Amino acid sequence: MKITAAEIYKSVELIRSQSPVVHNITNYVVMNNTANALLAVGASPVMAHAKEEVEEMVNISSALVINIGTLSEHWIYSMFKAVNQARKKGIPVILDPVGAGATTYRTKTARELISKEPPTIIRGNASEIVALYDDKSKTKGVDSASSSDVAIEIAQKLSEIHKCVICVSGATDYIVSKEKIIKITNGHPLMTKVTGLGCTASALCGAFAAVEKKPFAATVKAMAVMGIAGEMAASAATGPGSLQIRFLDYLYCLTEDDINQHLKIED
Amino acid sequence: MKITAAEIYKSVELIRSQSPVVHNITNYVVMNNTANALLAVGASPVMAHAKEEVEEMVNISSALVINIGTLSEHWIYSMFKAVNQARKKGIPVILDPVGAGATTYRTKTARELISKEPPTIIRGNASEIVALYDDKSKTKGVDSASSSDVAIEIAQKLSEIHKCVICVSGATDYIVSKEKIIKITNGHPLMTKVTGLGCTASALCGAFAAVEKKPFAATVKAMAVMGIAGEMAASAATGPGSLQIRFLDYLYCLTEDDINQHLKIED
Amino acid sequence: MKITAAEIYKSVELIRSQSPVVHNITNYVVMNNTANALLAVGASPVMAHAKEEVEEMVNISSALVINIGTLSEHWIYSMFKAVNQARKKGIPVILDPVGAGATTYRTKTARELISKEPPTIIRGNASEIVALYDDKSKTKGVDSASSSDVAIEIAQKLSEIHKCVICVSGATDYIVSKEKIIKITNGHPLMTKVTGLGCTASALCGAFAAVEKKPFAATVKAMAVMGIAGEMAASAATGPGSLQIRFLDYLYCLTEDDINQHLKIED
Repeated sequence: MKITAAEIYKSVELIRSQSPVVHNITNYVVMNNTANALLAVGASPVMAHAKEEVEEMVNISSALVINIGTLSEHWIYSMFKAVNQARKKGIPVILDPVGAGATTYRTKTARELISKEPPTIIRGNASEIVALYDDKSKTKGVDSASSSDVAIEIAQKLSEIHKCVICVSGATDYIVSKEKIIKITNGHPLMTKVTGLGCTASALCGAFAAVEKKPFAATVKAMAVMGIAGEMAASAATGPGSLQIRFLDYLYCLTEDDINQHLKIED
Repeated sequence: MKITAAEIYKSVELIRSQSPVVHNITNYVVMNNTANALLAVGASPVMAHAKEEVEEMVNISSALVINIGTLSEHWIYSMFKAVNQARKKGIPVILDPVGAGATTYRTKTARELISKEPPTIIRGNASEIVALYDDKSKTKGVDSASSSDVAIEIAQKLSEIHKCVICVSGATDYIVSKEKIIKITNGHPLMTKVTGLGCTASALCGAFAAVEKKPFAATVKAMAVMGIAGEMAASAATGPGSLQIRFLDYLYCLTEDDINQHLKIED
Repeated sequence: MKITAAEIYKSVELIRSQSPVVHNITNYVVMNNTANALLAVGASPVMAHAKEEVEEMVNISSALVINIGTLSEHWIYSMFKAVNQARKKGIPVILDPVGAGATTYRTKTARELISKEPPTIIRGNASEIVALYDDKSKTKGVDSASSSDVAIEIAQKLSEIHKCVICVSGATDYIVSKEKIIKITNGHPLMTKVTGLGCTASALCGAFAAVEKKPFAATVKAMAVMGIAGEMAASAATGPGSLQIRFLDYLYCLTEDDINQHLKIED
């Protein structure tokens, strides 16, 4: 399976023309960035977490993104409610298990979300993905510590058990399903110095999954666009502050030519 | 009624010299932008939502801004408490009914806020304003879908019933009261690609209403300043990321000359 | 006691090489800025407020920063739980009493936090520090109103009673302990037009206290770095929007030479 720059750009164009509503139940730290990244790529973000409205919000949405970055009791309740409704309605669900492995509460919540209502796509760093399967690993804060090899192996198992696509993101992003693995080496180390770019990547998976029926291809496309815009932003930035801003500008202005010139993908 | 650049700038100077405290009970997505925009225009923002303190916070404030963008039970309780206290104290109340029409919960909450404690100013996009009156419309996410004509008609009715000023914002902003309508065509399409600029507009209405006793004039001035700073920022920006940042810079540096050169107002 | 540019830079290098985890229970307005500033200086931020996980998160952290900027019942409960655990574990606790003096709820919460679980470092503006000791003062919003002289006197008393370091920040930052006072005059007036830079300063105190055992020196170093990066950012900025972004860039790129050239410290 080969995914080309033209195919990636075609999905970008679909997002821009259809402006799919992406419903986010995400963490307080990144809500603004997430909404801005979704707008920049062409989608229509909504943020709603009240149990009274999450189901109705799902009903007008084309994808649901769940992120456990600053979770608490009522939010978890709404996450389950929203995911349940999304599955009934048949829209893709993206899970970002932020900090899984760092505390029992996060690990437990992420695992329950996966076992009770398997998402369509899971995107996390190596530690987080490992924590979804095996509590022998430890996350250092919300940063990655585990080796990618272990994470990829676990991603394959999780993918098989829960029939979902897993993205293990890092310097190299691995998009993993039961049968295949694609590697993307776009991106830039300075991106790790901006909070919430992982969360942004998960939100972009939501936007792409809203317009691209195949979850595996949607994840590959989202991660490629994320890495390319980040890389272009980093090369124009004087530090993490300006990277964050330029990332949105490049995402908004992204052309097929940009993708063509920068895409680093391997299967 | 004619509002001139000189009059608009006079209010900007009053905000800068008096630095009125503007109390915001707003959504998680935009709190940072809102606080920064209020600081940039010269006001003094406070954010407080706990039932234990909202009344006291209102007591040291010159305007109250209520925004239902990420509402939930406890926040709604505090919104009512704060609005009630604001009306007792006689300070202007601005309501931003974010996403009214998108879910029953939002529509209901917005309508109850208006009927029980009519605000001084309501600012929303066409869909949201229509939803305040009539549930036959549907909001697509938090973006505008209804035609402005319908929205203006409804705004006039709402204005008459609740004795408040309504701003229907969009490519053209309509400031509506029972007797009059003023149109402002400042602003730039790129502003719709930055999250929360509508919320920022509502917060600016709070800052202007704090120093300008006439709510209609305050709304016109706020929307003009919003549009002009946005337009200047857009013309200097390379995308929505830099627009957001430059908007704050232009708002902070705004001169009477800038207003004079850019103001596009019609009555 | 003299703190040199070389010593300050040594702590910066330690933060960059050790990347200490700094756990923040902070307000909604500034979470993104705080996380970004901690990343820019080289630390590893985590944000977690659920009662179910704060203790475990403290256990993997090297400092805890408590900020009461948008407090409510459940958050206060978690703050006490986290501080208690931090003290058991022996990691430094930084308290930012945002808006103490503005409402009874904030003043009471801040005072209880200090009396029940004395923090290692308290950083606030003059009004806030005065409010911690004496309710005769009034805070105007969350900005400073009290004179620094009164605040310094009170800081000395608080420092003696609670055995902690107090930073009274403002145009001049005073770092106060029972025996000594150091003044830092770095910084720039434009910094007061960006929301949450005070909160950022408190977070940086957390990062420095994580690598520098002496809380007084850690506070001095953090405030110096804060002021220098802010000053460099202001001189390159066209307003508060660009200051906020450039601040992160300068913080990330800070060299020993920058500190040497800009440091304005007096004991």
